[in-house]
Amino acid sequence: MRMYDIIYAKRQGEALSREQIEFFIQGYTEGSLPDYQASALLMAIFFQGMTDDEIVDLTRAMMHSGDQVDLSRIAGFKADKHSTGGVGDKTSLIIAPLVASFGVPMAKMSGRGLGHTGGTVDKLESIPGFSTELSSEDFFQQVEDVGLSIISQTSNIAPADKKLYALRDVTATIDHTAMIASSIMSKKLAAGADGIMLDVKVGDGAFLKTIDEAKQLAKIMVRLGQDMDRQTRAILTNMDEPLGYAIGNSLEVKEAMATLQGRGPEDLTDLSLHLASGILVMAGIFSDLPSAFQACWHKIDSGAAYVKFDEWVKAQGATGYDFKQAAHERKVSIDATGFVSHIHAQQIGEIASLLGAGRLKMGDAIDPSAGILLHKKVGDEVEGPLATLYTDKPEVLDEAEQRLKEAFEITPDQHRPNPLIYGFVHQSGKDIVFEEYV
Amino acid sequence: MRMYDIIYAKRQGEALSREQIEFFIQGYTEGSLPDYQASALLMAIFFQGMTDDEIVDLTRAMMHSGDQVDLSRIAGFKADKHSTGGVGDKTSLIIAPLVASFGVPMAKMSGRGLGHTGGTVDKLESIPGFSTELSSEDFFQQVEDVGLSIISQTSNIAPADKKLYALRDVTATIDHTAMIASSIMSKKLAAGADGIMLDVKVGDGAFLKTIDEAKQLAKIMVRLGQDMDRQTRAILTNMDEPLGYAIGNSLEVKEAMATLQGRGPEDLTDLSLHLASGILVMAGIFSDLPSAFQACWHKIDSGAAYVKFDEWVKAQGATGYDFKQAAHERKVSIDATGFVSHIHAQQIGEIASLLGAGRLKMGDAIDPSAGILLHKKVGDEVEGPLATLYTDKPEVLDEAEQRLKEAFEITPDQHRPNPLIYGFVHQSGKDIVFEEYV
Repeated sequence: MRMYDIIYAKRQGEALSREQIEFFIQGYTEGSLPDYQASALLMAIFFQGMTDDEIVDLTRAMMHSGDQVDLSRIAGFKADKHSTGGVGDKTSLIIAPLVASFGVPMAKMSGRGLGHTGGTVDKLESIPGFSTELSSEDFFQQVEDVGLSIISQTSNIAPADKKLYALRDVTATIDHTAMIASSIMSKKLAAGADGIMLDVKVGDGAFLKTIDEAKQLAKIMVRLGQDMDRQTRAILTNMDEPLGYAIGNSLEVKEAMATLQGRGPEDLTDLSLHLASGILVMAGIFSDLPSAFQACWHKIDSGAAYVKFDEWVKAQGATGYDFKQAAHERKVSIDATGFVSHIHAQQIGEIASLLGAGRLKMGDAIDPSAGILLHKKVGDEVEGPLATLYTDKPEVLDEAEQRLKEAFEITPDQHRPNPLIYGFVHQSGKDIVFEEYV
Repeated sequence: MRMYDIIYAKRQGEALSREQIEFFIQGYTEGSLPDYQASALLMAIFFQGMTDDEIVDLTRAMMHSGDQVDLSRIAGFKADKHSTGGVGDKTSLIIAPLVASFGVPMAKMSGRGLGHTGGTVDKLESIPGFSTELSSEDFFQQVEDVGLSIISQTSNIAPADKKLYALRDVTATIDHTAMIASSIMSKKLAAGADGIMLDVKVGDGAFLKTIDEAKQLAKIMVRLGQDMDRQTRAILTNMDEPLGYAIGNSLEVKEAMATLQGRGPEDLTDLSLHLASGILVMAGIFSDLPSAFQACWHKIDSGAAYVKFDEWVKAQGATGYDFKQAAHERKVSIDATGFVSHIHAQQIGEIASLLGAGRLKMGDAIDPSAGILLHKKVGDEVEGPLATLYTDKPEVLDEAEQRLKEAFEITPDQHRPNPLIYGFVHQSGKDIVFEEYV
């Protein structure tokens, strides 16, 4: 088999065979195929697409390129959750203890963030004493004892995806549905959970700009889960503005904690409970989403969800909630009247990164206290400060303030925000269906 | 400027600016841009195409990536000729002395062949004593004394194209009009001639399969010449069967010599005279093609063309025409009746290579005597041998014989071959026009 023929076939719009896809993934992972042939194939895939069968084969080949995590030691239905990425998204911190409070174990390996703000692991590390570097034995033991653990991904999970993603990142081939779907699902499937809950973001702050694109991606991912005998559901959600008010690691942890105590922002609370409900239905704890949603509310009202959070983070080393404070803060106001009609989430994320909340390359240090606390969201009247900036780098405050003002759009009339949840994608018998949320 | 943005822009179908194209070509030539980004861009160009302006900028950037040959020392109009590649094409050996016999100098640097049969330089080296490795001084002196010289390309001509071509070759991005046009023309323009005569092949034995594709390529190349103030013309010609009867280095030289003596195959003679006529019109020796064509006939009839050939090759070291003979030959006949309807030129070329006439990689030795002499062409009745094979490797004769039989298609009825010449592309004022040959 020759890589040239594989590139040529895809360029001509042919579907690749399972053998061709395995040849490519194995060869590229072990280094026998050069980057320049891989990038040519990726660009040909970008233009010619892949059939559902090809995507299944690609995902399977990438999933099998490294370790398969075996969670069978843990009793019960093990759930995992993935978001396609949004600004201010701290739902994992809420969902994990919430579903664990129902006895559904969450044994989750998570990545560090590369981009505007940290990943889940970075957020958790902003809690004093919290350790994300557990041995495999301690990880399993904690899930058995406490019902959940989130650790930094150390296993050799889907190395093919890791290598290909790095190549896609520098060759303008990231934003393609088939490649995104196989990248996400190869890692999730290798991570061993029985059920996978997907949050597919749509809008200005997400890489998917339309509901149709998101629907397509969600359906492919649910099909991939189905194909590998894992329960998989997806929620399509709005990312036209940041989720909640907090952007930045410890700021987000604090907001997650407030949400678990019933004092969280409406959008964040609503989305977290929907995601948790999807997991509980997959786990068979409830037969329908409304019952699960109702029960989640009770766990928050009763304090049980927050108690599980506290138990969890302390089991993982947290010494308390005396978060590091940023050395500098600045309130940003704008000389205008009217209503917030739009907050450019992508730009908010970039400003948070400028303040120290994100990293530009692997290994960069993150400032856990840096970030942005919004005071206004879409629909709010402009009076008083728009946001507060937190940083240890006073030299970036002027630029951050200027850019923050530009990230807000103000109109004379009040706009109602788009709905937060567009709908659900799940299996229904053999079919995969989209159900609009009304 | 970032290569990522250039790839992204092209992927989205945008036209690249001159600055972007120069950044790419300079960076890739000097090695500061990696192969994997170049191959991703090439594949994006394959799908999105290039505007005429982009092709001009790409050609200019590649042309300026190395040496510009200065032929100004030679008086008069210097002509060059290029064929997009066909099997049995030995027209350069005929045209060069023919136009030189009119006083139009040919100072041509030519490449070695990589593929089925040798390049012009390899063919010339089959003449005993002929040297293609002349110093620059000897090269110019010979053109001044004799009126022509063809040497092996030693200058650093368009290194960007050389590097990119090697990359295209392994990433399935060779067969794209914009890239072919800029590749050919960057080298021809850097080689310094005042006029460029292009032979664009169409058909089974060529990489262009339709006249429309060939017309498009020819028009772009003529436009590129015009843009750089060089006279440029193209002829679109049929490559449905090999040109002439001889395929293989010394076999082709002998056929070229016979053609210069008026005893050549009809197709080869006709095409050579048309190409020479185009050059003579560009040089201003004749005002129209029919007069030039007529005059070419006279140069052959009178023996002047052959005398110029003899003078040329002896000036370049030839000691005579006592060609090396192949150790083995085999006549191939077929047990069938009817007429030849098609000869797969590509396959004929590959069989010649198998016999020793071509090289698979740079540096491979070529057997000057190896090759194929056809005895039948399209339209001929099948009786007696189809061809004779020549080789020093008797072990390949059985396979070569079998494949040769398969390369001939026989039908009960007589087929007339397609016309040899489809038409001409040339400048007409500011426009570039296609003129059908009738």
